[in-house]
Formats: sequence, C-alpha cells, structure tokens
Amino acid sequence: MDFFDVVTTQRAMRRLKSDAIPEDALRRIMDAAICAPSGGNRQNWSFVVVRDRAKRARLGELYREAWGELMKVPYYAGAAKEPPDSPAGKMLASARHLAEHLGEAPVIVLACVSLDPGVKASLTTGASIYPAVQNIMLAARALDVGSCITTIHRFRDAQVKELLAIPADVETAALIPLGYPLGKFGRPPRRPVREVAFADRWGLAL
Amino acid sequence: MDFFDVVTTQRAMRRLKSDAIPEDALRRIMDAAICAPSGGNRQNWSFVVVRDRAKRARLGELYREAWGELMKVPYYAGAAKEPPDSPAGKMLASARHLAEHLGEAPVIVLACVSLDPGVKASLTTGASIYPAVQNIMLAARALDVGSCITTIHRFRDAQVKELLAIPADVETAALIPLGYPLGKFGRPPRRPVREVAFADRWGLAL
Repeated sequence: MDFFDVVTTQRAMRRLKSDAIPEDALRRIMDAAICAPSGGNRQNWSFVVVRDRAKRARLGELYREAWGELMKVPYYAGAAKEPPDSPAGKMLASARHLAEHLGEAPVIVLACVSLDPGVKASLTTGASIYPAVQNIMLAARALDVGSCITTIHRFRDAQVKELLAIPADVETAALIPLGYPLGKFGRPPRRPVREVAFADRWGLAL
Repeated sequence: MDFFDVVTTQRAMRRLKSDAIPEDALRRIMDAAICAPSGGNRQNWSFVVVRDRAKRARLGELYREAWGELMKVPYYAGAAKEPPDSPAGKMLASARHLAEHLGEAPVIVLACVSLDPGVKASLTTGASIYPAVQNIMLAARALDVGSCITTIHRFRDAQVKELLAIPADVETAALIPLGYPLGKFGRPPRRPVREVAFADRWGLAL
C-alpha cells in the first residue's frame, strides 16, 4: 500500500474480529516496530505479544475493571453524558465495546520501556516507545489489521505485569489489541492543520 | 512510496542540507501528523513550524548549549569515549553535527502537548504526541526529506518557549529538524525482533 494511503486512513479500530492474524503479518508488524527511533538509539523497548487464550481472557477482565476506573475521570464521565451520535458519544461507545471485548482480540501487544536505575519515567521517556507503537499500528493498517492504542490498563498495572511476568521496574507504556476490523478504515476525525500548526510562533496559523 | 519501504528505511538523518522544503511537501507532512491518535482523540497537540531564519539561528544556539548539558549525562559522556567508528561513536558524531548545525535546517518543528489544569506530564502523556511525531518523520521520509527526533532542547526549554511564544503550561515534547539529507536513507541499525519481542510472557522469545 502507498504510504500516504496508510497514514491518512489509520484510525482507532476498537471493534475487532477474533480471527487469527497470520504469523507472517505479525512478524512484519513487529519488524516495523523496531525500525522506530529511540533516545540515543538505546532501543530500551520490549514487546510482550499475547496470543495465549487464557492470558487474553484475563487481560480482558483486568481491562474491563480499568474501564470502570476510567469512567470516574471527569473528562470521560462528561463524555459519557454526550449524545450517542455525537463525536464524543461515538468514541465512547466504541471504547466501551473494546472494554467489553478486549480479550477476544487475537493478539494483544504490551509495549514496554525500561529505565536506567534511579531514573523515573517522564514525558520524554515516551519518545523511546510511542514511535514504535505508532509503527505497529501503521504496519497493521497496511496489512488490513485493525488496532488502537490504550493506556488505561495501567489502572491494573500490577496485575498486568504479574500476569505477563513483566519486571516491576519496566513501564508498560501502551496496550495494543490487534485484529481484523469489523468496521472500515478511513480518514480519522481531526481538527484541520490550520488550527493546530503555527508558523514561526505560537498562535500564528501556518 | 510503498508503506513498508518507508517504515523500514526511516532512520535518523542528522546531516541536513539547507535547501528549502516545498510548501506542498510540508503541508503533506503536517497532514500526516494530525492523522495520528491521541488519548480520547483530544488532539491536545500543537506544532510550531519554524522557517524564519533568525529564529532558526537562535534555536541553533540554544540547541548547541543544550548539547553541552547532554554531554554531562553519564550515558552520553561514556559514549563520547567510544571509538569513532563504533555504533555509539558514529551516532554521537552525527548527533554532534546536528548540535553544531541545527539552525541551518530549513524547517524546525516543535511538537507540543497541552495538559488539563493541574495535570502533570507523565509517560503516558507522550501517547498523545509521539505518534504524531513519528507520522511527521515517516511522511518526511516518504517525500525524501530527512528528519530526526530530539528532546534535548528541553535543557533550554524556557528560552525555546520564550522565543516561540509557547505558553508556559504547554510541554515541548520534541524538536524535529527537517531537510533534504546529505546521507542516504536505509534500514536503521537495530537489535532483531527475537531479542525484544516476547511470546505470551516476559523472557520467552517470540
């Protein structure tokens, strides 16, 4: 697929079929992941690729619990009151579907980042893992595999780490379910460039 | 360009020509940026695209100062002692070139993320900005424009924000110079998937 066709039609796919993803496709997706940059090219990343049915089911349970926690956060509690056919309402319905069916996705990837002893995770720690996560989602889309990025598993982080034997000092930066989508790929709903990109100084439209 | 050709050959290009980037190419790069995901699709991102010569020169000065600070960090101070033809030595030489020539890049993008009042930036804040940064770098590569991601401008964050009128409560998550590269695109040096991807549990090779 053409690069720009991929990048402009990769949107969050939260309704996924349970059909397996071919091994070759999964390998290509993970190979795209490791081509991403990381700070000082340290590649302090690890990816736990979960296909085991029992572990996915347990991740699904934990994720459903995490969803309950998220709904207590004011922004999301507010979104839950929006009309079901509004952009916020649609997004929330789709996210709720994921919360109820995460364990049915054939593959769930935990993208992890390791830190030096004594160093705490910060915003810029993310520069060493989220580019790889984006490569995973773009490569998936190029192969017609749906995905989305979520971080709310962190409401049950200790349990997720225990389930997958992830060391305590490793951060689980993102959870990415992968599966063939029920919906269609297409341009995601976004504010236009002129509203978010500035020329030479803050506030001056590009 | 084919998606996988782009994603597997996008590597950090730190030696850039000063030739201008066509307006149309820049627009396509920024359009790719805004197709990225963000937490709850809040799109709490802003991109300051610097082409003004004086501002780029000043960013270059600040970046050179920041480089001096980085060289005091143990990991980088150690890398500076590696042989010049080792992977670490080559990376450092290339990064030093960027530190000395940043202001000559025709475009410098500051990728920023806004936070709700009272919320502090954390690892997962990065999930709402670094996917967009990766889209910028991939789209650039698809158009034969070189780029890299750096965060060391944050050693001079207050000055950078003042120069570009970025509000104090907005985080500058990444600085991305863009320009036609002196070197060639190609597969970046990375550890193989089998060393960083696990099957169903930490430590079990995929």
